[in-house]
Amino acid sequence: MTPSPPKKVVLAYSGGLDTSIILKWLQTEYGAEVVTFTADLGQGEELGPAREKALKLGIRPENIFIDDLREEFVRDFVFPMFRANTVYEGQYLLGTSIARPLIAKRQIEIARQVGADAVCHGATGKGNDQVRFELGYYALEPDIRVIAPWREWDFKSREALLDFAEKHQIPIAKDKRGDAPFSVDANLLHSSSEGKVLEDPAVEAPEFVHQRTISPEDAPDAATVIEIGFERGDAVSIDGERLSPAALLTRLNQLGHDNGVGRLDLVENRFVGMKSRGVYETPGGAILLAAHRGIESITLDRGAMHLKDELAVKYAQLIYNGFWFAPEREMLQAAIDKSQERVEGVVRVKLYKGNVAVIGRESPQSLYDQELVTFEEGAVAYDHRDAEGFIKLNALRLRVLARRDRRG
Amino acid sequence: MTPSPPKKVVLAYSGGLDTSIILKWLQTEYGAEVVTFTADLGQGEELGPAREKALKLGIRPENIFIDDLREEFVRDFVFPMFRANTVYEGQYLLGTSIARPLIAKRQIEIARQVGADAVCHGATGKGNDQVRFELGYYALEPDIRVIAPWREWDFKSREALLDFAEKHQIPIAKDKRGDAPFSVDANLLHSSSEGKVLEDPAVEAPEFVHQRTISPEDAPDAATVIEIGFERGDAVSIDGERLSPAALLTRLNQLGHDNGVGRLDLVENRFVGMKSRGVYETPGGAILLAAHRGIESITLDRGAMHLKDELAVKYAQLIYNGFWFAPEREMLQAAIDKSQERVEGVVRVKLYKGNVAVIGRESPQSLYDQELVTFEEGAVAYDHRDAEGFIKLNALRLRVLARRDRRG
Amino acid sequence: MTPSPPKKVVLAYSGGLDTSIILKWLQTEYGAEVVTFTADLGQGEELGPAREKALKLGIRPENIFIDDLREEFVRDFVFPMFRANTVYEGQYLLGTSIARPLIAKRQIEIARQVGADAVCHGATGKGNDQVRFELGYYALEPDIRVIAPWREWDFKSREALLDFAEKHQIPIAKDKRGDAPFSVDANLLHSSSEGKVLEDPAVEAPEFVHQRTISPEDAPDAATVIEIGFERGDAVSIDGERLSPAALLTRLNQLGHDNGVGRLDLVENRFVGMKSRGVYETPGGAILLAAHRGIESITLDRGAMHLKDELAVKYAQLIYNGFWFAPEREMLQAAIDKSQERVEGVVRVKLYKGNVAVIGRESPQSLYDQELVTFEEGAVAYDHRDAEGFIKLNALRLRVLARRDRRG
Amino acid sequence: MTPSPPKKVVLAYSGGLDTSIILKWLQTEYGAEVVTFTADLGQGEELGPAREKALKLGIRPENIFIDDLREEFVRDFVFPMFRANTVYEGQYLLGTSIARPLIAKRQIEIARQVGADAVCHGATGKGNDQVRFELGYYALEPDIRVIAPWREWDFKSREALLDFAEKHQIPIAKDKRGDAPFSVDANLLHSSSEGKVLEDPAVEAPEFVHQRTISPEDAPDAATVIEIGFERGDAVSIDGERLSPAALLTRLNQLGHDNGVGRLDLVENRFVGMKSRGVYETPGGAILLAAHRGIESITLDRGAMHLKDELAVKYAQLIYNGFWFAPEREMLQAAIDKSQERVEGVVRVKLYKGNVAVIGRESPQSLYDQELVTFEEGAVAYDHRDAEGFIKLNALRLRVLARRDRRG
Repeated sequence: MTPSPPKKVVLAYSGGLDTSIILKWLQTEYGAEVVTFTADLGQGEELGPAREKALKLGIRPENIFIDDLREEFVRDFVFPMFRANTVYEGQYLLGTSIARPLIAKRQIEIARQVGADAVCHGATGKGNDQVRFELGYYALEPDIRVIAPWREWDFKSREALLDFAEKHQIPIAKDKRGDAPFSVDANLLHSSSEGKVLEDPAVEAPEFVHQRTISPEDAPDAATVIEIGFERGDAVSIDGERLSPAALLTRLNQLGHDNGVGRLDLVENRFVGMKSRGVYETPGGAILLAAHRGIESITLDRGAMHLKDELAVKYAQLIYNGFWFAPEREMLQAAIDKSQERVEGVVRVKLYKGNVAVIGRESPQSLYDQELVTFEEGAVAYDHRDAEGFIKLNALRLRVLARRDRRG
Repeated sequence: MTPSPPKKVVLAYSGGLDTSIILKWLQTEYGAEVVTFTADLGQGEELGPAREKALKLGIRPENIFIDDLREEFVRDFVFPMFRANTVYEGQYLLGTSIARPLIAKRQIEIARQVGADAVCHGATGKGNDQVRFELGYYALEPDIRVIAPWREWDFKSREALLDFAEKHQIPIAKDKRGDAPFSVDANLLHSSSEGKVLEDPAVEAPEFVHQRTISPEDAPDAATVIEIGFERGDAVSIDGERLSPAALLTRLNQLGHDNGVGRLDLVENRFVGMKSRGVYETPGGAILLAAHRGIESITLDRGAMHLKDELAVKYAQLIYNGFWFAPEREMLQAAIDKSQERVEGVVRVKLYKGNVAVIGRESPQSLYDQELVTFEEGAVAYDHRDAEGFIKLNALRLRVLARRDRRG
Repeated sequence: MTPSPPKKVVLAYSGGLDTSIILKWLQTEYGAEVVTFTADLGQGEELGPAREKALKLGIRPENIFIDDLREEFVRDFVFPMFRANTVYEGQYLLGTSIARPLIAKRQIEIARQVGADAVCHGATGKGNDQVRFELGYYALEPDIRVIAPWREWDFKSREALLDFAEKHQIPIAKDKRGDAPFSVDANLLHSSSEGKVLEDPAVEAPEFVHQRTISPEDAPDAATVIEIGFERGDAVSIDGERLSPAALLTRLNQLGHDNGVGRLDLVENRFVGMKSRGVYETPGGAILLAAHRGIESITLDRGAMHLKDELAVKYAQLIYNGFWFAPEREMLQAAIDKSQERVEGVVRVKLYKGNVAVIGRESPQSLYDQELVTFEEGAVAYDHRDAEGFIKLNALRLRVLARRDRRG
Repeated sequence: MTPSPPKKVVLAYSGGLDTSIILKWLQTEYGAEVVTFTADLGQGEELGPAREKALKLGIRPENIFIDDLREEFVRDFVFPMFRANTVYEGQYLLGTSIARPLIAKRQIEIARQVGADAVCHGATGKGNDQVRFELGYYALEPDIRVIAPWREWDFKSREALLDFAEKHQIPIAKDKRGDAPFSVDANLLHSSSEGKVLEDPAVEAPEFVHQRTISPEDAPDAATVIEIGFERGDAVSIDGERLSPAALLTRLNQLGHDNGVGRLDLVENRFVGMKSRGVYETPGGAILLAAHRGIESITLDRGAMHLKDELAVKYAQLIYNGFWFAPEREMLQAAIDKSQERVEGVVRVKLYKGNVAVIGRESPQSLYDQELVTFEEGAVAYDHRDAEGFIKLNALRLRVLARRDRRG
């Protein structure tokens, strides 16, 4: 039942060593025509070299796709996720997880456009990303052929892989011959680092793994205060300046970077079953999360907020596990989006040496009622005596229970 | 159907002006014999004066109860709550909420001991605390009479209240005649401030409302690193020194205080239906929460952790709303405690100008398996090829769905 | 702080004795102008007499509102609820609960139209209905004055109430002077009976309390098989005949009635804190629930179905407690409705002496794939070997755990 | 990396054709010493023949294990599950799912006892049972070797399998040469039938697939009323006669059988990703579920009941998916068991032609308070006026919201 080899493969191609090896391996192992897809998700690398490398490796110009997806990424993936105040295992802002579905989606679009019968990614066989890519592929194109070289090929060691590269004239940067001290994933939302020097969770992460933030110790001694404007649950402006989603997140990243904001050292549970340790930097995201909670705190009803909090745990798991395109994620999104219709206003946030503190919030849609909450008499809507009845009926079942349990 | 007046009332008595007025009011309004109960929950006030004031107001010595409940508070209330990583509305550590059930419990115990037919508290008619006290009373003693003076008496203003105090020779501190700029609740876990200068959520909380922490700006320029030891989910030692629950939390409070840790400025949703703004300081609790998540990250299975995260939202709501003694809180506690049996080990935490960062964790019960997670070959338990089947079957329903939706 | 009396009151008026007394009491107690609102929700009573009685009691013709709300009731309230397979406490189909929000909504509309400053209902002070009515009123018209006579007036007994009726020339049916053996609520979805002869939950409900169904024992010896068609999660046809929502439910009610379907004898937990025992008859609803689950079973993805099942518990509580117009109910509805987009097809249901059995389902949107499920080889999409990887990775964390626990 | 062949294998052996073929295949394919384990779980088959067949196939007497696990099955698996009112996808009572963990557990115990290095089951590669068996094995013995012949061997068809059987002198019943019209799993809790004649979900299940119940149509014309006694949430007696767990379930099965109770025709979602259609008969279980809900209805507090209902959805999924030995299932069990401490009393159940109706319940631990619920005055604990405050504060947030939304 061995399937016939794929004829045309759309490869998620970074231009780096590993995906270049994969590119060559697809050509030699399968004799497949390779289409490269390189996305700008804000990872902070030039994409020009990716095109050149692809050309050098024999990819035809019409088979090279390079797309700037930053706006789509923030608008259609990052922002919807932040509407839910999404954190995985109480802490992780899902920076890697949320990028994978978009890459998968675009790969499938290209596959349809060029008539490819397969897609290929460079994620390893032990991580979550393979799952996220492939669930995305299958959910969008159920009969697509998926190639996951790291699970398929026979290279027994990094050494063997590099030998293959040399044999096929793939240039190897000097520092790649030796072992990199850790591996990195990056996009506009975050950078993650893991492996090697980070593998012992008892040992502090060295300062040099951080790439997107300076340390709180190195941050300025004076705080930075900014105002973030929201509409329908999404950030739309900073200090009154209206910005596109990607521009806004870029600006927040800079602010977070400069103030040492958004670092996380975490041992997390992978979907594939083991624990791993990662260092995450989400400078803009950390600010966004705090500010979003801030604007919700005055514009969202209690019932809506509590329901959101209950749904968010599962919602985060779905995104972490790669189920962005699953119907249950879409159902949760419908509920969350419904809640955001009047989440608008301005939040003042103070950034200081790693801290993000909401220090003020105001909104034309505010539900905060200063009169209602004051201690003195005068507020019209609230009769203190109502509280007695409220408590009495809430207590009723507990009293019946207490009588029973005393009796029993 | 007006009930006959209470004969003997156990009053939660702080020794302050308001509960002194209540004391006198109970005597004059109801002609009741008053029993005062003053608890040391670590609020940082001398309790000796409370006894003296009670005596001066005519309470008989055998009717004055002063208890040091700090150990019970931390051991039986704070720690069980922290096992669940409990936060209300994503942020609040429930420092006030968790103290109320203990006060209620002790009041009922005293009421039984002295044969009192009523209990009384000084919480206002707009807050959550009245609910928490009274649900506690009723759950433990279903037929107790509850007196809530702030909901009952006729004083139309603060002025009238103070006139009553003067008339009954209750000493009024100078600064109380004027309006206090905000009100405070404190115990070993936290201080909360609210009202007056904090009422406009758009305006930053002034520095002077903070009482338990110095500001991050004022904290030392050098970080403090500590090691917290855990057993069965509870903190048991700091830097290798075994400490009782209250002593441990006291120590963490000092460390938090010195490093500007644990401040929160929050607009929250009260159970009684309105939004309010509070400033919370939970220096030790903030450290404890981070450290507990840290030790769980290596000792708790994914299934257990995710279930805990799902349960924690409701668990927090129950405590916030005053349902500590409700069966559903006890059911959740049973589930949570079950998960903590092997949550033990040591977490290294770095405190620096408001930041709490877990930088290392180790445990004899660790589930983190360095071999399993490494990128290179060699780990025995994990076959990369398994991932394919894992993904394929997880994708199966999505593929069937995609075929249907394409067809439909 | 006693408010001034209401000037114009919209009364939910059934035409029966109790709401007639309320009508008169509003006139005499408050001197208010009364506007009567009588809804046809399919309770099976003529509405003509309600108009006549209102006229006799002095209501001006332009102040009498009689509306046939049956289609709106089924389309906008019953059907959306059934999309979620809603049951309260595992069993109750919420027939009373779901009608209250519609009555409240229409009362508020009329109040606006006629410029009334108050609304009034006839629900007692111990039940859930007062909550449902009033939460509806307040959610739609926050400053409306609500009058709940059963909580306000001074009648000490049923006797006193009837004396008041006699005094005001309200006709009293012979059987009303004595005590009714139980009380009834009815609409197109169900009838409920409670009180008196049903108060002891140890004693079987007498046959005579049932009004909407014959007993299974009295039902025909031959089964009835029907086909129910669905679109977007709602029933749209019976045996191929397209029917409006109310006509369809009416038809199902008849079918259920004739086959002894839809009886429930339940002890439930009221929102106001006590347990009560009710006998419910929901003949059409019982059929609809089974059929809806049947069509979902082949058209709904697993992820969607399981999420729905998780959400449905809370959704049912919200409706039972009267929070139909709360944002969290609307959020859940958004999620549920999202799932129903392709829930269409036909379900064959067999009715027989109280039993409702789904015996066949088919759909152009079916996700059931006969090839995928067969035992023999041949199905293309499923490789048995994938199951090994699926199991291995699902087991991985359990294995790590087992090793730890053995070691520990 | 091919592992060395297993030396000694504990096979879950039914004595039937398929597991006999597996037995022989293990001997010939792997040259392994086979240990057979046959459990009496109440499937209604003699176990003597299994021993004889094993002997004939060359198994040494000391390698044949035959255990009566009926009491353990009901006491430690079925009853704990029923405490949660567990149903999968709203309907399925999990009769097959709950038996697998026990078989897995006993296989592992035997493997330890005889020093086996592998275990083997006869579940197919498309079903849930392989997952349930293997998750059980791995959770209890993380390094055990698992053999799943249906996923491993090369037989291309049923024909080839039978040829192998003939070649090895395994007797083949006449009716097995042809295709069985459906396949069956049975134990004390239920029988399930699936495949072949049941594969088209549009077609009614033929009467002949049913094995554990007569049809409602064939059941007696007179109802049967029984009383089931409960203690700590478990059934302990029928009509006053105290019975062991297995004896009690056996008795209920007979009663259910005779009255046509407990049939279910369901399309369900398998954990491995596809939908399948099964016919389930759970005569005793259907009665038990209704009765348990009945006793809970008067002895369980609302908060506990609602929490249970929320947890039960996930709990059912865990059991269905095979995670009985996972920590999250144990956490949920701790919560559920905590709730059952006072669930005791007697429930009267009426069985009639497929219907199970609770018609009475009483308990020394009852929380139902007849005085509290009556309409008339007199009950001490409930003041109608309390309801006003209760409603007002529950409505407060909705009113604030309504004012905002009107304004916005």
